[in-house]
Amino acid sequence: MCLYEDNRVTLAAGTDISFTEDRAARFDAYGWHTIAVADGNDLGAIDAALCAARAETARPSLILVRTHIGYGSPNKHDSVEAHGSPLGVDEVHLTKQNLGWPTEPPFLIQEPALAHFRAAAERGARDEAAWNERMAAYAGAYPDLEDELAQRLPGELPPGWDTDTPEFAADAKGIATRVASGKVMNAVAPRVPARLGGSADLDPSTHTALKWLGDFNPVSGKDIDTQGSSGGDWDYTGRNLHFGVREHAMGAIVNGPAAHGGFVPYGATYLIFSDNMRPPIRLAELMGLHVVHVFTHDSIALGEDGPTHQPVEQLTALRAIPNLTVIRPADANETAVAWRVALEARDRSVVLVLSRQNLPTLDRSRYAPADGLRRGAYVLIDAPDAKPELILIASGSEVGLIVAAAERLQGQGIAVRCVSMPSWELFDALPQAERDAVLPPSVRARLAVEAGVAQGWRQYVGTVGEVMSVERFGASAPADVLLREYGFTVDSVCARDGANPRRLRPALTVPN
Amino acid sequence: MCLYEDNRVTLAAGTDISFTEDRAARFDAYGWHTIAVADGNDLGAIDAALCAARAETARPSLILVRTHIGYGSPNKHDSVEAHGSPLGVDEVHLTKQNLGWPTEPPFLIQEPALAHFRAAAERGARDEAAWNERMAAYAGAYPDLEDELAQRLPGELPPGWDTDTPEFAADAKGIATRVASGKVMNAVAPRVPARLGGSADLDPSTHTALKWLGDFNPVSGKDIDTQGSSGGDWDYTGRNLHFGVREHAMGAIVNGPAAHGGFVPYGATYLIFSDNMRPPIRLAELMGLHVVHVFTHDSIALGEDGPTHQPVEQLTALRAIPNLTVIRPADANETAVAWRVALEARDRSVVLVLSRQNLPTLDRSRYAPADGLRRGAYVLIDAPDAKPELILIASGSEVGLIVAAAERLQGQGIAVRCVSMPSWELFDALPQAERDAVLPPSVRARLAVEAGVAQGWRQYVGTVGEVMSVERFGASAPADVLLREYGFTVDSVCARDGANPRRLRPALTVPN
Repeated sequence: MCLYEDNRVTLAAGTDISFTEDRAARFDAYGWHTIAVADGNDLGAIDAALCAARAETARPSLILVRTHIGYGSPNKHDSVEAHGSPLGVDEVHLTKQNLGWPTEPPFLIQEPALAHFRAAAERGARDEAAWNERMAAYAGAYPDLEDELAQRLPGELPPGWDTDTPEFAADAKGIATRVASGKVMNAVAPRVPARLGGSADLDPSTHTALKWLGDFNPVSGKDIDTQGSSGGDWDYTGRNLHFGVREHAMGAIVNGPAAHGGFVPYGATYLIFSDNMRPPIRLAELMGLHVVHVFTHDSIALGEDGPTHQPVEQLTALRAIPNLTVIRPADANETAVAWRVALEARDRSVVLVLSRQNLPTLDRSRYAPADGLRRGAYVLIDAPDAKPELILIASGSEVGLIVAAAERLQGQGIAVRCVSMPSWELFDALPQAERDAVLPPSVRARLAVEAGVAQGWRQYVGTVGEVMSVERFGASAPADVLLREYGFTVDSVCARDGANPRRLRPALTVPN
Repeated sequence: MCLYEDNRVTLAAGTDISFTEDRAARFDAYGWHTIAVADGNDLGAIDAALCAARAETARPSLILVRTHIGYGSPNKHDSVEAHGSPLGVDEVHLTKQNLGWPTEPPFLIQEPALAHFRAAAERGARDEAAWNERMAAYAGAYPDLEDELAQRLPGELPPGWDTDTPEFAADAKGIATRVASGKVMNAVAPRVPARLGGSADLDPSTHTALKWLGDFNPVSGKDIDTQGSSGGDWDYTGRNLHFGVREHAMGAIVNGPAAHGGFVPYGATYLIFSDNMRPPIRLAELMGLHVVHVFTHDSIALGEDGPTHQPVEQLTALRAIPNLTVIRPADANETAVAWRVALEARDRSVVLVLSRQNLPTLDRSRYAPADGLRRGAYVLIDAPDAKPELILIASGSEVGLIVAAAERLQGQGIAVRCVSMPSWELFDALPQAERDAVLPPSVRARLAVEAGVAQGWRQYVGTVGEVMSVERFGASAPADVLLREYGFTVDSVCARDGANPRRLRPALTVPN
């Protein structure tokens, strides 16, 4: 049920100059139940509308209430001046006189209103007591369910929730992190009933459907052969939400169960479309909500869809949002750890940034364990005696690239350390000594490689380090052609001045 | 006129699971003319609909054409598989057989189709010749107008266009840069007919109305007493557009005249709402369009509206978009120069980031001229003998703050240089030597002050420099209270380690 205050005045103008649609007809077309109240001061009519809306259980209701902004003000009634500015002392006085309201004291609460509000407090106390009684009875009758509720409401995960999280065997061909993410999600979901979510019409691409866990739907009866079905029932027990092509709405909708508690909701789309949902992502962080956003197709390497679909600045732009944790895992096993971090978070949301293309699954018997992701950045391959003269740093799909480059450079006698840096925020939260252990201040030769804009990387490469980045829009071509043309090859990495500790050049404007 | 291909299948599913609205009724409610074509293969029906749409001149037309995705494919007709993936060799073969189309050669253009396309080319050549003839006649009959057109189409400004741009006298109380911007816009607009634009329902706050230059409206007849009127006629000659509360649409709409040529359109809203229009801003940059975006209320200093309205990360997030030039002027005179830069730009858009609150109008007889803004960053106050031991850097509303701090620190015997840095992009485009002249590499003690997230500033302060920033969301309070609580005072600036060249501390993780 939604009350729409139809006062026909906005901040700048009357609505007649920019908003001529028939609002009720528009919501009728959406399938809503609409009710018009002609006079916003007619309490009887509003009451009747509220009752009619409550009686309608199959559709949401929109009650359009015609009101007048600045009602009763002799000079500001129905005017834009009443939108953004206070009426002012004089006009308030005139308005009170006009409405037959006592002009003194300035803040007057008359007795009937006071009694009404006080009664509401008493009614609330009674309702709360009754609720508590029902909860106690429920806990007595269903102790297991009460335990689950007590655990879920504050956001705790059930014991053994990650028992089935897969480990991925080393594999040079590897798999896309979006695919690995889908496997992890589906391994975890049966043990974590708090998971609920879906994509903005991209399940087959984002790999975010929770298979055989049902589709959330007001009416039972669709069958599992319906196109887009995730398997299982179509009813209110379904855990897959179908948002349609509506990223902004998805962002707003997933905030709901997170604010309610008892759920760790998620939404999914391509990274480029995160631009469409920055406002609700930001609101979640303002409120300290725990949502997981799955953003796939994370660089120019998505290929033929071209520059309109290729994120270049979105990763950086998400990192700029306060409170939000952004993670871009390098391979399937980092993706599994990223999901653990995402689910274990509490008063913040987590963004997972995943590849469309296959990424090698790193051989963890040769390199450091993927669990290092928890620290935001970790040493994947170290130089002999842990004494690097050069540090290569990358996130996500570029980690495989610096691993190959590091091995070639080591063959050339350069003491290289290779750092996987999936998350700035997790790294920045470490104590200084732990950060210095990964990126020792004494090592000035550094090269960061990331297929996005460089903004912010100077923080980690220092003044003589280099960033291999993408500072222009993408192009339409197969992924391997693009990566070659944009310089993301082992040859290019190794040829960089920044990859040669004997060829260091200070970035002049920056002090060194 | 808009053709809507209603195939009822999206990437992930049939539309029935997420898109149940009555599309025609929705557009009827918007006031559109809607026409349904039941069969997308019925060329006669489509032709009739197109003719009906052309005949309707008072309303836009939506033609809803029912089609079937993968039409004719025995196994993929009406299926999601036909949305995102090619049919494949075998299914293409089966589809051709099913449709009675020759299966060889693989790319077949039959003779009637070829003749039809060839005829279109001939018709196009005839139409172009006729057009050129009319243009020549027009140029002969109206040489002045033809001159204006020839100048406007490639984006040239008329001679003397900036004659009336105001200069602002030094004033400690000063004015808000949004107000200065409004004065500049109104001084320039009468001489630059290419200017056309408006705000997303915020004219009285963004100060972007072009007064007495009319309001763009399909029907004449509204009078200038209409709320929201900019003064002048309401018709197609009006240069003020009323977008309503629609930032994304505004961003898309202003791209239109920019793509057409002959206009330098602008849109305006609060900086926080730039998040709602990143997709069209980005598209403009992809296309190299020249649009000016005016974003006001640019920091926590907007005050009581609170954290939902206070931009913290938006400035940085805009700087991340390739090609875009972001300018945050420090006072009224920098605002005037910023508008010159914005109008003189060509294949890129410019964002002006402006304050709600008053900012002191700097005394340019004591400080460097505001024209330094063209270089992105310039020395406002220098240390004795141009030998600074400390550089203070700020943009926009924080420049007044570092000017006051610099004067106090100079009194304490510290050799301070004070740099106004309104635009990273303009600065980064300078030759290295010019950048080094403003920010000499030898001066490591630097403090940047900006009321937004620090991300990216490390590029300019180096590894031992400091950034005074806002790393969390805002709060609801009067501007002066917020600025004090968030540390934006002369005392705080002067007390920073970063403001004391004898107390330099390297940021440890960053190499130094």
